[in-house]
Amino acid sequence: MTTTALVALNSSYAFWQLSDRHAEQLRSAFPDVRFLVAHEHDFPVEIRTADVYFGWSFDRAWLDTSPRLRWAATPSAGVDHWPVAALDAAGITLTRGYGYHGRPMAEHAIGLLLGFSRGLFTSARLQTRSAWWKDDLADSFFDLCGETLMIVGCGAVGIRLAEVAQAFGMHVIGVRRGPPRYEHGGIEWVPAHRVREALPRSRAVVNLLPATDATHGFFNESTFKACRPGTVFINLGRASTVDHDALLAALDQGRLAGAALDVQPRKPPALDDPLRHHPQIVLTPKSAVFSHAYMDQAVAFFVDNLRLFLADQPLNGAVTPSKGGTHDPH
Amino acid sequence: MTTTALVALNSSYAFWQLSDRHAEQLRSAFPDVRFLVAHEHDFPVEIRTADVYFGWSFDRAWLDTSPRLRWAATPSAGVDHWPVAALDAAGITLTRGYGYHGRPMAEHAIGLLLGFSRGLFTSARLQTRSAWWKDDLADSFFDLCGETLMIVGCGAVGIRLAEVAQAFGMHVIGVRRGPPRYEHGGIEWVPAHRVREALPRSRAVVNLLPATDATHGFFNESTFKACRPGTVFINLGRASTVDHDALLAALDQGRLAGAALDVQPRKPPALDDPLRHHPQIVLTPKSAVFSHAYMDQAVAFFVDNLRLFLADQPLNGAVTPSKGGTHDPH
Repeated sequence: MTTTALVALNSSYAFWQLSDRHAEQLRSAFPDVRFLVAHEHDFPVEIRTADVYFGWSFDRAWLDTSPRLRWAATPSAGVDHWPVAALDAAGITLTRGYGYHGRPMAEHAIGLLLGFSRGLFTSARLQTRSAWWKDDLADSFFDLCGETLMIVGCGAVGIRLAEVAQAFGMHVIGVRRGPPRYEHGGIEWVPAHRVREALPRSRAVVNLLPATDATHGFFNESTFKACRPGTVFINLGRASTVDHDALLAALDQGRLAGAALDVQPRKPPALDDPLRHHPQIVLTPKSAVFSHAYMDQAVAFFVDNLRLFLADQPLNGAVTPSKGGTHDPH
Repeated sequence: MTTTALVALNSSYAFWQLSDRHAEQLRSAFPDVRFLVAHEHDFPVEIRTADVYFGWSFDRAWLDTSPRLRWAATPSAGVDHWPVAALDAAGITLTRGYGYHGRPMAEHAIGLLLGFSRGLFTSARLQTRSAWWKDDLADSFFDLCGETLMIVGCGAVGIRLAEVAQAFGMHVIGVRRGPPRYEHGGIEWVPAHRVREALPRSRAVVNLLPATDATHGFFNESTFKACRPGTVFINLGRASTVDHDALLAALDQGRLAGAALDVQPRKPPALDDPLRHHPQIVLTPKSAVFSHAYMDQAVAFFVDNLRLFLADQPLNGAVTPSKGGTHDPH
């Protein structure tokens, strides 16, 4: 019986859409698979015949109208907005993507870090009104070379970030709940429960934690108190992992020199949200994983997995209900 | 006869001063050399007995009062504010430093580049007033990975910059007047007279040119016209190498997507200088070479050279009157 794959990768951004070229690529690679490229209004009908679903999100109600579905794939790294337990209970395998979020996120994290360490955000703010702000920068800049970067929730994305940080001459501490999943030379691994002991040695912290019960409020008053004064904190993970009142207090106490938040507790933040107006905070609009190469790589990952699926082999990126991923691009 | 070395490395910034620790380091390394660590008011007297001078600047008038002087050393990479011809005529060797400006300058250049490519400067500007600026960034960001960086005036500093750019997955074009002085894998070398042919392939241009007659106005209307639309231009070299009216026009025509200038025609720029107020220009206050490791490395370079001097060997970084360096930190 012909396998039917429903592909629903719509987005307001071209780089997160399935283009005609990608659809053609799928059809040429798998001439025996019937591909349905769906628009949102087609869903309720087309999900009925699908064996495979590849999309950004999944409505729990679709489970009642998708008797044939055996595999649901998302290009995202994170699945915290997916009905993970319900899919599992229905015997449907859920896979997330990995291996292609790291490049844009590493660029984003290093850009934010250098924006603070070289005084670039300060320069951009002062250039219109300060006679000469060289002394301001001389008092606050620091070299990346020789300093330590801590990456919390250090998986595939963190490894890529570590590689570029090391090219700048930084020492990298990788923090994980369990033992490292990937081999990588030069990273000093620290278990999550010992993070406070390693924070005083770190000049910058990049948070990549997923949203789970265990990570809720991981960065709280006591975590920030363990930071070395002048630490730069960058959150590219999930807002729920940070206590933002404690973050603001840590900035005002000088424990943090700057904070960059790609995720915020309210999206978008209210216009009077103090996170928008603190002079040492830079907000980006969930843009860390913006990449023009995204869909090429996400489709390539799906193609590899579809080969495995058709051969009844275990799939890459399968999510077990007890454990979420690290990031999604929405 | 005892060699006397006058060291005059004063600065308003601690990281560009000779500390007591550095002075002690020099005295222990060369117990037979008499070191005079000068303050500015001591100069007219102390230069009279010096065989060696190590300082930030040199007043041409000192030539009349320094009969013993044979070598003048600066930690700077650039010597365009030194009386190069007069020193040469007096038989005094001038040396500049190299090998330690690259790290901070590479951090600065990549930080500025990512500030534009990831929309970080736009985010910092819009976060206080835009409801949600995700679309603004989606329309303008680009990946460094897979793009081409052109480095104009690519010497030791450029090589270091190339290394970190390559860690991000960038292709690097190195532009020089003559053949490359340093071996480096992966750089595509282009002679300066063919720069216009390579500009359409470049997404970002970092200018490291020194101030010489040959480089004056190198980036002019015709150079900018050869740029691919959306190019990011970063000047860490000398302001004289850029026609700033042509730069502003190129920004307004979309030929350039952004420009970062660590050097400006007037220092500091007037408060109403259009370079301060253009929304796509970021100015930094000649801070690209800010580094807390600077003086350690500059003294180490001088120590190596002083050993050569005492052994009557040729010195590293000797400047010939016909050719300037690439950068100085002032």
